[in-house]
Amino acid sequence: MKRDADAAARPGVTWTTRVYYQHTDAGGMVFHANYLSFMENARTEMLQAAKIDLGKLLRQDGVCFVVHSANIRFRKPALLSDMLNTTARVVKASGARLVFHQQVRRDDEVLVEADITIACVDAASHKLMPVPAAIREKFHAKEH
Amino acid sequence: MKRDADAAARPGVTWTTRVYYQHTDAGGMVFHANYLSFMENARTEMLQAAKIDLGKLLRQDGVCFVVHSANIRFRKPALLSDMLNTTARVVKASGARLVFHQQVRRDDEVLVEADITIACVDAASHKLMPVPAAIREKFHAKEH
Amino acid sequence: MKRDADAAARPGVTWTTRVYYQHTDAGGMVFHANYLSFMENARTEMLQAAKIDLGKLLRQDGVCFVVHSANIRFRKPALLSDMLNTTARVVKASGARLVFHQQVRRDDEVLVEADITIACVDAASHKLMPVPAAIREKFHAKEH
Amino acid sequence: MKRDADAAARPGVTWTTRVYYQHTDAGGMVFHANYLSFMENARTEMLQAAKIDLGKLLRQDGVCFVVHSANIRFRKPALLSDMLNTTARVVKASGARLVFHQQVRRDDEVLVEADITIACVDAASHKLMPVPAAIREKFHAKEH
Repeated sequence: MKRDADAAARPGVTWTTRVYYQHTDAGGMVFHANYLSFMENARTEMLQAAKIDLGKLLRQDGVCFVVHSANIRFRKPALLSDMLNTTARVVKASGARLVFHQQVRRDDEVLVEADITIACVDAASHKLMPVPAAIREKFHAKEH
Repeated sequence: MKRDADAAARPGVTWTTRVYYQHTDAGGMVFHANYLSFMENARTEMLQAAKIDLGKLLRQDGVCFVVHSANIRFRKPALLSDMLNTTARVVKASGARLVFHQQVRRDDEVLVEADITIACVDAASHKLMPVPAAIREKFHAKEH
Repeated sequence: MKRDADAAARPGVTWTTRVYYQHTDAGGMVFHANYLSFMENARTEMLQAAKIDLGKLLRQDGVCFVVHSANIRFRKPALLSDMLNTTARVVKASGARLVFHQQVRRDDEVLVEADITIACVDAASHKLMPVPAAIREKFHAKEH
Repeated sequence: MKRDADAAARPGVTWTTRVYYQHTDAGGMVFHANYLSFMENARTEMLQAAKIDLGKLLRQDGVCFVVHSANIRFRKPALLSDMLNTTARVVKASGARLVFHQQVRRDDEVLVEADITIACVDAASHKLMPVPAAIREKFHAKEH
């Protein structure tokens, strides 16, 4: 368990993408809502590094993660062909919620920054449910 | 039943949208894949006009429509703020497939044109299944 | 000018959409980032009602609006085929920023709520610039 | 020049992605239009491997690539968390058009297959223009 927790928490788990045409809009910059997708992908890879597969979680356990709230600052625009790194760090893990701090960076510049709170829902009823213990445990070390 | 079939087939069932920033890319034009989404929306409204609700079909019957093949010609670009009308016309309805001819128009100009073949799949297994009879019947008049 | 300001401010300017397949994800709900797109569309229609066309603004004046920050609460999920109304109300208009309060509703339920701050940028340089006076004036009555 | 052409043509230039929530729809599968985006990304990386940067091409030369026509067969669905490889191979390069054959694969299975014809447009006027000679040359070896 210890190793998984370390994997989940390690700062090196980022999601990297080039900016493709589909990410941009007529203003020549990345369309703002797409940064939320980049952040979701970074969270997914962080979970994956901790051996939590969202596809299995959905299809086998009927559980999905949903975003409960998001607070985002768009500091600088990303442009077509830029290489972006999106980070995900758990800052709080309780039975009901996971809170992430996330950044989208181009080299050393932080372009977008967000605090994102995640909850779990039952995929059939779409009702909120507790974060599964197996997932919560992986982030236990971060809870203080 | 006759009235529904007429509703489904009537040429006036189009889906209208303005071009918003999210539809465009850094080239200043609508990103090509978005026209496929516009066409899906027009098909959805055509089905809705024939009293076929895709949400109920998915959640109550476990059936979803999928695109089986598409042949698309992009003739002219649509630009930010343009008003676009997307049409959907069933040209063939069999037990296994529905074939649509669709256009995206700005006033009288056809910007994009496509032939799109749709099939049904079981939402749980993702396996192909016949088009439900109730749906096929609504397009029966068009099958010749 | 008075009439335009009224048009812009009137509570009836909402953007309506059905939830189409493209808006949903494998959890069966609208993917969270799409609500930001719905909100952008509602702002666009509010500006349009005040005779501000974003397409002309971009192509003739080289100005585009960008989201500077967003604070969003996702309260309840929207499902495939739901009809959603997205509202946009200017709560603060200064030389540098427009602040909107926005809601996504299904009938009388508020599903998503956000405070969104908008700025203007020069489309060529992507540098921040003041909100054009002609636009600011339309929202002047709301600034108190 | 020879080395660039080889780079562009080499079969190993694929674009890899995991299937994230944003790619899927309520049917539990990747939304069909997203495969067109995956294919665009694979073409972009193939050009990048041949030292053609679409961002520079747009901002310095005012040239962008657009899809002229597409013929797509969707054979099998991709699901949440699947790892997908998208390939791009130039099958014809003329002064006016580049024709690609592309596949989206999961391991050895071909899920989606398409023939996609690309043209160049002037970013300011949105008018068709010849494919720049420097780009055409890189694919010269493939023209027969």
